[in-house]
Amino acid sequence: MEYVSSRDIHLSPSPVYSLVKKAEDKMLPYQWEALNDRLAEGPKSYSVRNFRAAAGEIDAPHAGAVFQDSDIFKWIEAAAYALKRERNPALEEKIDWFVSLMQKAQQPDGYLDTYYILTDISKRFTNLRDNHELYCLGHLIEAAVAYFEATGKRGILDVALKYVELVNATFGFEEGKKHGYPGHEEIELALVRLYRLTGDPMHLNLARYFLSARGTNDYFDDEAASRGDKPAWAWSVYSHRNRYYQADEPVKEMTMAKGHSVRQLYLLTGMAEVALETGDSELKAACDTMWKDITRRQMYITGAVGQSSFGEAFTLDYDLPSDTVYGETCAAISLYFFATALLKSHPLGEYGDIMDTLLHNGTLSGINEDGTRYFYVNPLECIPKRSKYSQSVFHVRTQRQPWYGCACCPPNIARMLTNLDERLLLKSGNTLYVNLFASLDTQTQLESGSVSLTETTDYPNDGSISIRINKAFHGFVLALRLPGWVQSYTLRINGQNPPCVMDEGYIYISDLKDGDEISYVLDMPARLVAAHPLSHATAGKVAVMRGPVVYCLEEADNGGELWNVLIRPDAPMSVSRDERFGQVIAAPALRQTQDNWDGYELYAPLRRPAYQDFTARFIPYRLWNNRGEGEMRVWLRLKEN
Amino acid sequence: MEYVSSRDIHLSPSPVYSLVKKAEDKMLPYQWEALNDRLAEGPKSYSVRNFRAAAGEIDAPHAGAVFQDSDIFKWIEAAAYALKRERNPALEEKIDWFVSLMQKAQQPDGYLDTYYILTDISKRFTNLRDNHELYCLGHLIEAAVAYFEATGKRGILDVALKYVELVNATFGFEEGKKHGYPGHEEIELALVRLYRLTGDPMHLNLARYFLSARGTNDYFDDEAASRGDKPAWAWSVYSHRNRYYQADEPVKEMTMAKGHSVRQLYLLTGMAEVALETGDSELKAACDTMWKDITRRQMYITGAVGQSSFGEAFTLDYDLPSDTVYGETCAAISLYFFATALLKSHPLGEYGDIMDTLLHNGTLSGINEDGTRYFYVNPLECIPKRSKYSQSVFHVRTQRQPWYGCACCPPNIARMLTNLDERLLLKSGNTLYVNLFASLDTQTQLESGSVSLTETTDYPNDGSISIRINKAFHGFVLALRLPGWVQSYTLRINGQNPPCVMDEGYIYISDLKDGDEISYVLDMPARLVAAHPLSHATAGKVAVMRGPVVYCLEEADNGGELWNVLIRPDAPMSVSRDERFGQVIAAPALRQTQDNWDGYELYAPLRRPAYQDFTARFIPYRLWNNRGEGEMRVWLRLKEN
Repeated sequence: MEYVSSRDIHLSPSPVYSLVKKAEDKMLPYQWEALNDRLAEGPKSYSVRNFRAAAGEIDAPHAGAVFQDSDIFKWIEAAAYALKRERNPALEEKIDWFVSLMQKAQQPDGYLDTYYILTDISKRFTNLRDNHELYCLGHLIEAAVAYFEATGKRGILDVALKYVELVNATFGFEEGKKHGYPGHEEIELALVRLYRLTGDPMHLNLARYFLSARGTNDYFDDEAASRGDKPAWAWSVYSHRNRYYQADEPVKEMTMAKGHSVRQLYLLTGMAEVALETGDSELKAACDTMWKDITRRQMYITGAVGQSSFGEAFTLDYDLPSDTVYGETCAAISLYFFATALLKSHPLGEYGDIMDTLLHNGTLSGINEDGTRYFYVNPLECIPKRSKYSQSVFHVRTQRQPWYGCACCPPNIARMLTNLDERLLLKSGNTLYVNLFASLDTQTQLESGSVSLTETTDYPNDGSISIRINKAFHGFVLALRLPGWVQSYTLRINGQNPPCVMDEGYIYISDLKDGDEISYVLDMPARLVAAHPLSHATAGKVAVMRGPVVYCLEEADNGGELWNVLIRPDAPMSVSRDERFGQVIAAPALRQTQDNWDGYELYAPLRRPAYQDFTARFIPYRLWNNRGEGEMRVWLRLKEN
Repeated sequence: MEYVSSRDIHLSPSPVYSLVKKAEDKMLPYQWEALNDRLAEGPKSYSVRNFRAAAGEIDAPHAGAVFQDSDIFKWIEAAAYALKRERNPALEEKIDWFVSLMQKAQQPDGYLDTYYILTDISKRFTNLRDNHELYCLGHLIEAAVAYFEATGKRGILDVALKYVELVNATFGFEEGKKHGYPGHEEIELALVRLYRLTGDPMHLNLARYFLSARGTNDYFDDEAASRGDKPAWAWSVYSHRNRYYQADEPVKEMTMAKGHSVRQLYLLTGMAEVALETGDSELKAACDTMWKDITRRQMYITGAVGQSSFGEAFTLDYDLPSDTVYGETCAAISLYFFATALLKSHPLGEYGDIMDTLLHNGTLSGINEDGTRYFYVNPLECIPKRSKYSQSVFHVRTQRQPWYGCACCPPNIARMLTNLDERLLLKSGNTLYVNLFASLDTQTQLESGSVSLTETTDYPNDGSISIRINKAFHGFVLALRLPGWVQSYTLRINGQNPPCVMDEGYIYISDLKDGDEISYVLDMPARLVAAHPLSHATAGKVAVMRGPVVYCLEEADNGGELWNVLIRPDAPMSVSRDERFGQVIAAPALRQTQDNWDGYELYAPLRRPAYQDFTARFIPYRLWNNRGEGEMRVWLRLKEN
């Protein structure tokens, strides 16, 4: 299976279109200013400045994090997806200027990492564990491939290829090479992407090497000893200090998501991509096992992953606290990437379901309405005053920020969103798969013919999806994802019930003819959702969802002390259109008051609690915190009868 | 009001007696071995070794924390309380040997702190903020006073007096003196104790100085600048970096408990003690305000205080999470000390109620059944596997430990327990106050005569208290504390209802004659308790209590997944005697099962939860974790119907 290229797709207005436009029109220009240190607020990026210095254009020391190069690379990749849809000379001029800096900064042997170039290049490749050179190269490769595919310009691609040659000469199983692998995974998936462009087996083999070597030796500790450093102390509280880096066991033996969540998920995405190319069934089996662990035991209802701020890490199965959660925006994005990779291997609706969940909840919560303010941490509960005085939630910012010293998330969500049109449809043989729903026209070549169709939907505001077959061919099959949350739906072709086959979350429709009108209506009532009884933090609680969208209560609508809001299992929920927040939900609820409580007592014999009826107003979780600081809560107390 | 001396009290078997004996017979010998680095397990103390080195007896560098001297001082104080009841040559020989080390280590000008003596004494008094010299001196004074009062031996007292002279010459408002105050409070309360022994106004004035200067200047920052250090960075996340030390505002202006909880409470105890001697009503008013903030808004149901592991600190009102709590044993002990000081100012039953709560819950939870294993952190909920992988509970040890590198808690609870008999009774004028209930004989002098009585009780296992008046006098008044949790009680004198007056938590009985038999029976049913609706973490939850004792569920009795246990508001609870755990409670409860849940789903539409009836077995919270590692929980879900 492969995704249908954005060149074969023309988006028309729908929620997906709005996201793509927001990313193109607001996020890309804003982030360019940020990366060039021209924002009025927030920490400076230094990402471009470091390249200017490394190119000899200015005299400045390296500044910012050791992985600051990756921010601009991710932004170039994001911009490239926009350029693939429509060339833009002004935007290309910026990128071409930056690429000229890269060319000047690149060392004669291909090396290119501003941290070492501007500090002490003799120390390069001596701290793979902490210093992110291979991670940055991964993002450089992705930017290079995307920009080449969008524009045909080779500049950045040649830079990447030369650097990859050096890395291939430096690392590997062969004697005389370093037997290392990255402390932060990412290059594995990027090398597969490069291989698909170049067809050079070295590129795939290097990715395979990094996966095969990982966790099979004590490279990080040996490397630390060579530097005169100690092993990674900070993570020694875990059962194995290299668990944080997923370097404590061979990748095929992993069974439970562990350590730094973005690292874990980029690794898994790389494994899935390599397995696609090599057919390595053990690698794929490890991916499947890990997919289940993450999505069935370690994922928040919003798709957020990474429960612990320490190490931005996974913790353990069914440990899903709403307040102390980390839920880094990048981690949600990386789970989305993992799903996109797995979906290429097999048409399983669950992959698209999780992409849908992530898109409409745990990734988008990372940006504000216009895409220029960002959360790094995405809690499911916020009591702002706690973030000031209680360590357990110090990491939870109570307002989105203009930028971060470690600004991995903003350009990451930009590249996810500008590429959204390439995650909507897939094709395999004569089947076209509708994965994520959006309004679009597509014309694309399948095995035995070309198909053209028009899709119209306001999903996820509405569950109606209309598809007109403009042109089909004999043998064409259309597969529509049937989301796992759907309890009932109708499917009509020209007003008739069609014969169709349902399999693993897809409805397969054959015998379609030119001009057929498909009406696919997913009933999308608001619903109460519970979590698995093994999840200690959500015991006795419920969340409100509608379709793939998780809702929340905000103080702005419901007052504070949201922990005292209860909802009955049979509460009728009414959905209405809101100009600002799309579909909002109103439901009768109860608020426990202090009426039955003597003001000064902290503890007292249980009395019948006093409740007040009120109408709770829910907005989509992803849109919380667009009206200033205030309380927010996803999981509410359940009032049984 | 003053506490009746242990010399006027003879304990007989009862729960209080058992605690005193455990402290004397088990904890003191065990801790002496620990302080001399002779335990087979656990970190070394170095507390005695540092003195041997400072005395020139051995050649060793300073080891352990900068405040390690205080551990042995607290142990001497604990031992002194035992010696006050009964002299013990073997025990005194140990202490006298140690005092001889102190005498050798003391510098000619009186200075005595092994950290600076063994490192660089020229740097002494240059880092009051972090380096605990005045804190250690406070504990030295307390040990000295207690040992002198117990034995009449002046050795350690003279050491203390000489050191205090030096401190008095070094610190004060006067020009030429340093205008500093301790980074960890304790010396203030100790100096009042010394003043009561010596009558030397300098001792009281020095305590007053430390309180008056505190928070009125930028001493810690100035001192840091003099050292070439930065201001206290670690706490700068708070609104004021010196908030951690309660040095951000004058002590009389404090309104909310803040920063390091033991520091805060030792400071308050010192303020209360100074106010007792000076009659400073503003100081007393600040104590009252803070008492209310702590006990009515920042105290766990067990009496534990300090919600945040970062800074071992208070957080904010009604922020009382059960899992991420710190609840240091020392913090509970220091709240007990604060209550003991306030009670001397005014016969308010609430002070004794909190002492009772602390004694039977949040302090005793710090030790195991035989007093030789210790918790530093006392959670109200424990899911052991979380402590391994989730940062928010990394600080929660799942088993009591043989010792700690920072072992402030073990000798602190020892000195609290060996002194317990001196916190039972108070006297003022012709009134004898019964504060904490225990079996005892007492004969003590009141204003107009001497009284003798015998008290017999199994409290808190049972609510019956029998008092026989052996000898009274005209005008004698007996005041019995009526705990705030009491819903009904009977009071009979020789079988008759006596005339009596109830006021502020005490029942005052006059006209008692020799031979009168008082029967005071507090009904002590098990009860369900709720917390204030502003407490987000306990919303919808209940705890089980009986008398002052908080109960918990343990995995050993009830299986795991205790978050899925629910109790009905009207659940009948039956109390029975258990050989090991005293009174245990059985109650019908519900366990939410996975029967209505598809195994693999993490989130699913709300269905009627499946419940299983079972009999929950509750044991006193203080006795949890005496049967190996396992889950524990105090706050349970309420099943409203």
